[in-house]
Amino acid sequence: MSVAHPGGSADALGRLIEALRLLPGVGVKSAQRMAYHLLQHERDAALRLAQALDDAVHQVRHCERCHTFTEQPVCSTCLDPLRDARQLCVVETPADQAAVERTGSYKGLYFVLMGRLSPLDGIGVHDIGLPALLQRVTEGGVQEVIVATNFTAEGEVTAHAISQALQRSGVKVTRLARGVPIGSELEYVDLGTIAHALSDRR
Amino acid sequence: MSVAHPGGSADALGRLIEALRLLPGVGVKSAQRMAYHLLQHERDAALRLAQALDDAVHQVRHCERCHTFTEQPVCSTCLDPLRDARQLCVVETPADQAAVERTGSYKGLYFVLMGRLSPLDGIGVHDIGLPALLQRVTEGGVQEVIVATNFTAEGEVTAHAISQALQRSGVKVTRLARGVPIGSELEYVDLGTIAHALSDRR
Repeated sequence: MSVAHPGGSADALGRLIEALRLLPGVGVKSAQRMAYHLLQHERDAALRLAQALDDAVHQVRHCERCHTFTEQPVCSTCLDPLRDARQLCVVETPADQAAVERTGSYKGLYFVLMGRLSPLDGIGVHDIGLPALLQRVTEGGVQEVIVATNFTAEGEVTAHAISQALQRSGVKVTRLARGVPIGSELEYVDLGTIAHALSDRR
Repeated sequence: MSVAHPGGSADALGRLIEALRLLPGVGVKSAQRMAYHLLQHERDAALRLAQALDDAVHQVRHCERCHTFTEQPVCSTCLDPLRDARQLCVVETPADQAAVERTGSYKGLYFVLMGRLSPLDGIGVHDIGLPALLQRVTEGGVQEVIVATNFTAEGEVTAHAISQALQRSGVKVTRLARGVPIGSELEYVDLGTIAHALSDRR
């Protein structure tokens, strides 16, 4: 789709709009709005964003142990001697890791898949680092793998593949509990969740 | 609002997320998702975006005649000898200018306010370049000013201020016609629009 700009500014402005469209969830209208806003009101912010993009691309890499984003070879969580190395929480993304971390109730280590199994999109066990996870677990020390992939179809398939792969490792594999979210009214909770909450009642 | 990242990557990644939040319509969740997406899948795109931002900030300026975005002192539309200099279409933003331009049915020149009157936000006549518009019109050559500000409360106030200001210039001031949009069913069109369409029937 071409982005025409009357006024002859198609070059730099057009390139900016095209580049903004590469952001997830940004269509041509939003990209236009963003570009105009930055150029009209926030030129300093635009330069800061340019610098931040450049810095992040060149400095952020994956932790060698847990695969999360970090600027060091091994991230500070993996290096933290106060974390319980016997527990390994497997999450799909750094955002999920941040969510678990924010609860303040988990003191073990993480393994970030950086994705989920999705055969339809051609994402297989190697793409999500399942072999690396197996190696990480069999290297010893880990006693429990807590599978915290999302409770979506793909997350469940991924969880299943992980527990299958770990079956012969002798490590205990657990899954986050399913149940009724805090603050919700039963009337509006879906039936599958209520059924799970019933069978997992305590 | 702080953006914590387990894994010790708070620096470059945190700065990127903070910078992305400065884009209009992007909250902390979207900024996180964008940052993770760029770093995980689109590092080339991130570098292209950084370059495009830098280029645009340094190369894009305002046309001296119509105030739209351009890389030259005067934009190509203003310099185009085939455009009818007797007509001047006043729009709020380059996006509005692009919309008028896409119709292919206007061959005059433009004046881009780069905003609208909004007393509540402290945006007055000088912020939208009304004096510059007056000067542009009185410099001669312009026979008709077509006010194409938006049909919002602020756009209407702006339109009113423009026609007031031009009253003594002797220039004809017209406004885009209000009416029923093409493809719409009367049943779903608001009453004010129908009333306008009735009184402006032809």
